[in-house]
Amino acid sequence: MSSLDALIDALKRLPGVGQKSAQRMAFHLLQHDRAAMQGLAQALRAAGEDIKHCQRCHTFSETELCRVCADPDRDARLLCVVESPADQAALERTASYRGYYFVLLGRLSPLDGIGTRDIGVTELLARALEGVEEVILATSFTAEGEATAHVLAEALRARGIRSTRLARGVPVGSELEYVDLSTIAHALVDRR
Amino acid sequence: MSSLDALIDALKRLPGVGQKSAQRMAFHLLQHDRAAMQGLAQALRAAGEDIKHCQRCHTFSETELCRVCADPDRDARLLCVVESPADQAALERTASYRGYYFVLLGRLSPLDGIGTRDIGVTELLARALEGVEEVILATSFTAEGEATAHVLAEALRARGIRSTRLARGVPVGSELEYVDLSTIAHALVDRR
Repeated sequence: MSSLDALIDALKRLPGVGQKSAQRMAFHLLQHDRAAMQGLAQALRAAGEDIKHCQRCHTFSETELCRVCADPDRDARLLCVVESPADQAALERTASYRGYYFVLLGRLSPLDGIGTRDIGVTELLARALEGVEEVILATSFTAEGEATAHVLAEALRARGIRSTRLARGVPVGSELEYVDLSTIAHALVDRR
Repeated sequence: MSSLDALIDALKRLPGVGQKSAQRMAFHLLQHDRAAMQGLAQALRAAGEDIKHCQRCHTFSETELCRVCADPDRDARLLCVVESPADQAALERTASYRGYYFVLLGRLSPLDGIGTRDIGVTELLARALEGVEEVILATSFTAEGEATAHVLAEALRARGIRSTRLARGVPVGSELEYVDLSTIAHALVDRR
């Protein structure tokens, strides 16, 4: 295989990139931006070597503890459970949460053979017993995310730890007409 | 800057990739496909080192002459002028052209300061005088591509070399209703 075909194949492994986009990217880099090509190669290599998981919350981190876990000024009574480092990053960007996190790195999916052990439920329960007063379950509002939240809520309740779920409702900026009915129904039930 | 931010920034240099896509790509690679990450780094590095330009037609090539230029069985009377290696690759994929190519690596764009010298017109004229009987101008059907074709056609005519242009018309598989008017007008004029 030529280096060009190898590059196109490698670009196709990126999410959302098909044959056409990969070709366009390869030709663009080769013709117009060889510097970006070397920069990306370097960034990929560095990220692969430097980025590990935080020992405490399991999000991506270049240090043993991530920036959040290493911050003693956060509220140790709150623990927010998310599915992925991307979700954790999204919550951090809102700047409206001051507690700590626990990243499951997955969600329950019996059909794919992903059970409670694979998403670190035991570790989560141990972590929750370290003085946490409220566990906020911020898994996705998909069938699998809801199932994960349900299982975690049960396990936490059995150990006497309170858990809450992110509010469901109408997204900010949306017109009711275009919001799906199940979301409107939930927003109606949870009205305040 | 952290390795994660550096990776996201590097991915943003890819055409069609913004902040959100770059984040999604970075998180996906880190969480689900570290092998693809190393593979892409390697492919980028190899491509940057291996892929040069063909000395004869200027397309991308890992050898001094590209596969097409090195093939003695092609029709030396035909020379097809394209703007970029991507255009040349598209024409090759049609498997309906048996001549040689000349890749301009650009198109005339006076506003951007790209003149006849930058797109290798002198080299093209020299190449066309090596026994070529017909130069097919396959530059884009944009304002700049049309201007480039016009200038090249004039220069070739002054040297007694015949040039033709790709046919304009209705794309295969399209319904007339959705084809733009200027294309329909051209298809009408060039009807056969």
